[in-house]
Amino acid sequence: MDLVRQVEATIQRHALVNRDERVVVGVSGGPDSLCLLHVLLALGQPGRAAHLNHSLRGAEADADAAFVEQLCATWGVPCVMDKRDVPALARARHVSVEEAARQERYAFLGEVARGCGARTVAVAHHADDQVETVLMHFLRGAGLGGLRGMLPVSWLDEMRLGRPVSVGDSTECLRLVRPLLGVPRAAIEAYCAALGITPRYDRSNLDTTYLRNRIRHELIPLLETYNPNLRTVLRHTAEAIAGDYDLLRAQIEQAWADALRHEAGGALAFDLAALRCLPVGLQRSLLREAIHRLRASLRDIGWVHIEEALHVLNAGQVGAQATLPAGLALTLDYDLAWIGVQGAPSVVSSGPTVTGPVTVALPGETRLADGWRLAGQVAPISSLDEAWRANMEPYVAYLDAERLAAPVTLRPRRAGDWCEPLGLGHRQRVRELMINCKVPRAMRDRVPLLVCGEAIAWVVGWRVDARFALGPQTRRVAVWRWIPPEEKDQNG
Amino acid sequence: MDLVRQVEATIQRHALVNRDERVVVGVSGGPDSLCLLHVLLALGQPGRAAHLNHSLRGAEADADAAFVEQLCATWGVPCVMDKRDVPALARARHVSVEEAARQERYAFLGEVARGCGARTVAVAHHADDQVETVLMHFLRGAGLGGLRGMLPVSWLDEMRLGRPVSVGDSTECLRLVRPLLGVPRAAIEAYCAALGITPRYDRSNLDTTYLRNRIRHELIPLLETYNPNLRTVLRHTAEAIAGDYDLLRAQIEQAWADALRHEAGGALAFDLAALRCLPVGLQRSLLREAIHRLRASLRDIGWVHIEEALHVLNAGQVGAQATLPAGLALTLDYDLAWIGVQGAPSVVSSGPTVTGPVTVALPGETRLADGWRLAGQVAPISSLDEAWRANMEPYVAYLDAERLAAPVTLRPRRAGDWCEPLGLGHRQRVRELMINCKVPRAMRDRVPLLVCGEAIAWVVGWRVDARFALGPQTRRVAVWRWIPPEEKDQNG
Repeated sequence: MDLVRQVEATIQRHALVNRDERVVVGVSGGPDSLCLLHVLLALGQPGRAAHLNHSLRGAEADADAAFVEQLCATWGVPCVMDKRDVPALARARHVSVEEAARQERYAFLGEVARGCGARTVAVAHHADDQVETVLMHFLRGAGLGGLRGMLPVSWLDEMRLGRPVSVGDSTECLRLVRPLLGVPRAAIEAYCAALGITPRYDRSNLDTTYLRNRIRHELIPLLETYNPNLRTVLRHTAEAIAGDYDLLRAQIEQAWADALRHEAGGALAFDLAALRCLPVGLQRSLLREAIHRLRASLRDIGWVHIEEALHVLNAGQVGAQATLPAGLALTLDYDLAWIGVQGAPSVVSSGPTVTGPVTVALPGETRLADGWRLAGQVAPISSLDEAWRANMEPYVAYLDAERLAAPVTLRPRRAGDWCEPLGLGHRQRVRELMINCKVPRAMRDRVPLLVCGEAIAWVVGWRVDARFALGPQTRRVAVWRWIPPEEKDQNG
Repeated sequence: MDLVRQVEATIQRHALVNRDERVVVGVSGGPDSLCLLHVLLALGQPGRAAHLNHSLRGAEADADAAFVEQLCATWGVPCVMDKRDVPALARARHVSVEEAARQERYAFLGEVARGCGARTVAVAHHADDQVETVLMHFLRGAGLGGLRGMLPVSWLDEMRLGRPVSVGDSTECLRLVRPLLGVPRAAIEAYCAALGITPRYDRSNLDTTYLRNRIRHELIPLLETYNPNLRTVLRHTAEAIAGDYDLLRAQIEQAWADALRHEAGGALAFDLAALRCLPVGLQRSLLREAIHRLRASLRDIGWVHIEEALHVLNAGQVGAQATLPAGLALTLDYDLAWIGVQGAPSVVSSGPTVTGPVTVALPGETRLADGWRLAGQVAPISSLDEAWRANMEPYVAYLDAERLAAPVTLRPRRAGDWCEPLGLGHRQRVRELMINCKVPRAMRDRVPLLVCGEAIAWVVGWRVDARFALGPQTRRVAVWRWIPPEEKDQNG
């Protein structure tokens, strides 16, 4: 039969399943899934049917289950049946019945696949489903990702969770394939008729919502008076856009990797200059991607939010902020663009932080709450080379040990704090120093100051104080070294 | 007025015109173009109106012209008027009246701009025009380029010619801008009403074809029952896709530059291995781009053509061919994929070619019909270094001068030709040698053979014959060097 050869070609072209690979087929009892199961069996593919009773239509649903079980027995294909109380699950999860049904159906298919060691699940979405999906997405304004429609191969988890997953996210990596995606509904019904099967028609079909029905029976026939080839044309549009989308994803992932500086505590920091160099299409995509990653369940992101954020991103001053969906905000710092929870001190430092005073041992090691450790040693001046004197490393300092006479502590800045930055030649307020050094605004209250008595000896990560620096009179050196969380102290 | 500020923001955002730059405004006398002209004047932009009478509606069109002239006088803006016989032009050019009208209108706007030294032409397409355009393109299956709708800035020539032009193509580089692209029709009409202008309504409006009218009055109202925000959503889709399209164009141009090997004589040759490494989205785009460049006027390229060509490209053997639109074909060679006129010996060599015998002077210079020249010199062996003996350069050969006793000619291969390729150690048919060397199939009958009497001394570009190579007995060397067309002979 032509349809069998067509599906075979689709399977080969998109590498849907290997020849002898077991496939779990979702079978409702309707014409589409019966056709799919029969075609896969005709192609010699080892199959396993899976039928879920959603407890939505009482006796009718029980009859569907019995029909599927009987037909599978006739065809000699193993069949896994289950029944779940979808209305109760919907109430418990505070989601619609349609949403709960989708979650349960794909969860069930995943369980059946794992149960028989299959890595591929096949569902019966066909060419007309694809046209309807593309139209729904177009009307919703879904962008390039949505205009792809359904894909011949995706991840089962994407359907279960209702959102994109990356391979790394997915614990199971079960594949979801759609071998009938190029076959029109009419050809499927003709196939069933030729086989003499009388499929079950689910009148409350959960995939066939009111909107989809209107699109099928009202909109598509009208659009076909504009272009008689509409169905073919929209399927080709979807396939071409799927290719374009893949190209863009590769660009987005490259730009993401190039521009991302920090990622922690529910916030992302990007290199501002790098973002500003990007074409606007990439800026837009990176913002959307950031929101998706921070708020995984968010489906549609408002256009206005993104455009306002783009404006701030490209033209904003330090401290400028744009509101994003789901309580997020974009905030500009000197050289970073932060995306995180609006109004929260969400900004993450890449260095050590303090929120109150901490006593420091010398010699010895002091551990901060954030996991960073400060190791202090004392060494004779003779072992010094000149490079040490310049104190160029952000997290290593060489200070005159004899000047550190009073107790040494770490603490955050206070109003009125001042120091004598090495090389500057005069006093400076710590506030000014931080502005001049472009310390990210949100970090400034958490940068540790190494303090000896009342005098600031080191603004950690930024400047050593001239009064504590090494000089001709220095005989013994205090060597301070910060050890990041997780790293072993290689001197210890 | 809000509308003026909105247009100002659009102008700044998309850099449509500089503050004091003169803009030619296409003014039909309808509400859209009157609003555009008035807003630009309100913003202090130096403007010049341009009105073309298309000779399509007799006295009514003359009245439109008089109305525009009168209003421009009242507003104190210079106005250039012209009248052209569009129906006659349409007949002469064998195009539709709508097509001829479009060509003439944009040609006229270009002439007015050049006449007053302007480099920017503004037209009054608005937000609802954009929605209609996006829908028309979507229904036609126009792909990413079409889903962008109209752009805020493009090239006037693109509208005049009805196809994309690159900056290099355009002799004039006049910009076409659309400052009202974000303004709905209703706001424009309210603006005109508030000004007390009664615009002229062109009932045969050439931009408002039957299809567009149906979309406006039938389709969009229906689609708004699916999504009340349809107009906004589709404008945002277009703008987002325009950004995505720009990203893809950059990728396509990079891939084109990386993969293209030869371009001449109406044919393009790509590195086959490079094409096969590309993602399918890029392969598809490169094929379309190649067809566009070879057949500039081609608008829509059939999906089936491209998919068949993709199949041949990725899985075809040497000699495999796929039919493309407009008499073109894709043909695979060993390491090249050619796109050119189907069935024609269109393939272009990057080296010298001969179609019949040519007598060669030694010493001296021989010029071929294709512009390549062969320079022959004789030198004593003492001046040779070892590298010469290997004859590694494709278009330079060092032969034993004393063996070249008989008259020397250049000629194409003949059936039965054989030689003794240097380094091979035995005789080989020229046909086999060319296959082994992967000489592009279409070039094989045009590769020059340097022949001495009946013996082949050099398969130019590929192999020197061992019988004529330098040896211990060699006293004098014939040095042959090919000079490409245009290049000066640096030894002469």
